[in-house]
Amino acid sequence: MIPSQGFAAQSATSALEPFAFERRDPGPADVVVEIAYSGICHSDIHQVKNEWNQSMYPMVPGHEIVGYVTAVGSDVKKFKVGDLAGVGVMVDSCKVCNNCRADEEAYCEKGFVGTYNAKDYDGELTFGGYANNIVVEERYVHTISKKLEPKLAAVAPLLCAGITTYSPLKHWKVGPGQKVGVVGLGGLGHMGLKFAHSFGAHVVLFTTSAAKAEDAKKLGADEVILTREPGAFDAHRGTFDFILDCVSAPHDMNLYMNLLKIDGTLCSVGLPEKPIEVEAFSLVTNRRRLAGSSIGGMKETQEMLDYCAEHDIVSEIELVGVDQLGVAYDRVVKNDVKYRFVIDMGTLKA
Amino acid sequence: MIPSQGFAAQSATSALEPFAFERRDPGPADVVVEIAYSGICHSDIHQVKNEWNQSMYPMVPGHEIVGYVTAVGSDVKKFKVGDLAGVGVMVDSCKVCNNCRADEEAYCEKGFVGTYNAKDYDGELTFGGYANNIVVEERYVHTISKKLEPKLAAVAPLLCAGITTYSPLKHWKVGPGQKVGVVGLGGLGHMGLKFAHSFGAHVVLFTTSAAKAEDAKKLGADEVILTREPGAFDAHRGTFDFILDCVSAPHDMNLYMNLLKIDGTLCSVGLPEKPIEVEAFSLVTNRRRLAGSSIGGMKETQEMLDYCAEHDIVSEIELVGVDQLGVAYDRVVKNDVKYRFVIDMGTLKA
Repeated sequence: MIPSQGFAAQSATSALEPFAFERRDPGPADVVVEIAYSGICHSDIHQVKNEWNQSMYPMVPGHEIVGYVTAVGSDVKKFKVGDLAGVGVMVDSCKVCNNCRADEEAYCEKGFVGTYNAKDYDGELTFGGYANNIVVEERYVHTISKKLEPKLAAVAPLLCAGITTYSPLKHWKVGPGQKVGVVGLGGLGHMGLKFAHSFGAHVVLFTTSAAKAEDAKKLGADEVILTREPGAFDAHRGTFDFILDCVSAPHDMNLYMNLLKIDGTLCSVGLPEKPIEVEAFSLVTNRRRLAGSSIGGMKETQEMLDYCAEHDIVSEIELVGVDQLGVAYDRVVKNDVKYRFVIDMGTLKA
Repeated sequence: MIPSQGFAAQSATSALEPFAFERRDPGPADVVVEIAYSGICHSDIHQVKNEWNQSMYPMVPGHEIVGYVTAVGSDVKKFKVGDLAGVGVMVDSCKVCNNCRADEEAYCEKGFVGTYNAKDYDGELTFGGYANNIVVEERYVHTISKKLEPKLAAVAPLLCAGITTYSPLKHWKVGPGQKVGVVGLGGLGHMGLKFAHSFGAHVVLFTTSAAKAEDAKKLGADEVILTREPGAFDAHRGTFDFILDCVSAPHDMNLYMNLLKIDGTLCSVGLPEKPIEVEAFSLVTNRRRLAGSSIGGMKETQEMLDYCAEHDIVSEIELVGVDQLGVAYDRVVKNDVKYRFVIDMGTLKA
């Protein structure tokens, strides 16, 4: 076994504290990654606090992981020692179901194995990226171009926030000539904005916060709609091809549905906790669709990372040390981050 | 003006009673249809009783109309006197918006003119098919094959129930090799069943009523799921390509959403009055979509009628005279009809 050092929550009410544990010895298909940076996803906080009622402890969070390969199994082909590598939300899937065979491992019919707070197929609890290393089967490890090395910390969030927004924008074929909305400017929304802009769409950012308007334009918004202004939506009814809703807080989805033109889709990636309420007339008018989307499969995640290297796209981040985890969590809950915290795992050694 | 005799409601609380009124003199593009049969759609009852808070009186309901052409304007090309003709849910649209130009008049950006309980673009109240005649612009009148004449009464419901189910099944490309659900066996559901079966899908009918199982199989269901049986849904999770939900009464949509496989769609045509509640996880899992669909455009409605002539598809009906309207309405409200009432407008003369 390989010794590992990380930060873990021991219960829903305890803070993240130093935690020593072990990773499996790498098998022939495994890659050992020394973790350089690990992003803080809002879902880490939900799970640490057991807000989704499915938490298992001790919990080492983290599924936005970048680092360097330090060892490879004998069958590993994509990696050699010293390569950059990334690990995202999943570390295994069944590989044989229709969806896995179609490169849609995110929708594995058996259920994929999450990078943390999950049991692997042998029943062992998985531990995530708030740690100095991780051992993952090659199929679930992504290559990262050397071009991105100078911004490596800002690459980490691509592994969750990046692919979660890239995947639906690609799936619904967002591109030139389209009017596309992004709801919410947070960890997900700011990546949605960057990708939709990069894909050539006319991008409209919806936010409650006037303070974010200037930032939104810098990040790629052609228009910003302040949703609390009276009549803000009126002129846009029936004009959108696609809307990516990145907000998890309760909000009236019908306001956005009614902005869609014929055959338009509103895709929610924000995972609101309460059921989404939508009027039948909002759907029937213009034959609209309300959809959801998860992360992407391994092939698409690699495609996204390669696209980001080619187009110089990374996340906007604030880098923190392991001693600032508590503060960072509190600020994420208050939406006080531009736009993703990333932990410098080098500070573990300090 | 052309004298017309029909049945109208004078208020939300009054019964349908004989009503004399006038139709416009036919213009160059108009077709005059002597109405032979008129279907009773559940929405007629909602509107007569002002249950959607948008009723205008006097109201002559009816938007499932078949009959014979008795006069044509000088520019009319599709029809001559004596031809069979059908009129559905709309009698005009703007003709110039993107959707009208794309043969999607049902989604006219200006809003189409309903066959009844609507104002036409000149501000005149429209009167529907519970009458002896109607005057409609050729574009909004459909030809009906002579092959269907022996079953003409059963053709009437195709103009609303037929196209409302045909259109989404076609739009989402239902066909061989697919597992398709139809929820509810009523006026819409029984047509959905017939079409989905005819298109070659494996069709599963969902109903609360064991009494309907045998009928459902005769109408084209390969399987029937009795939704109140414990565990009825369990074996079907993640296996459906498409589900057509024809139920307007409140029901748990998540049960059906969870039956969809990757990229599957649940399309609601039942127009539930209360907002549909759907869990974000139901959408995100398998990248599912909840959609709505209205009637079809004029081109698609004609295609549907031609398809029905070719494949001998009509509605299951109970024929009633105008003296039975009250009884028929009461039975529709109780779901006690197999599966659509059609009014023999010949009884107006009696």
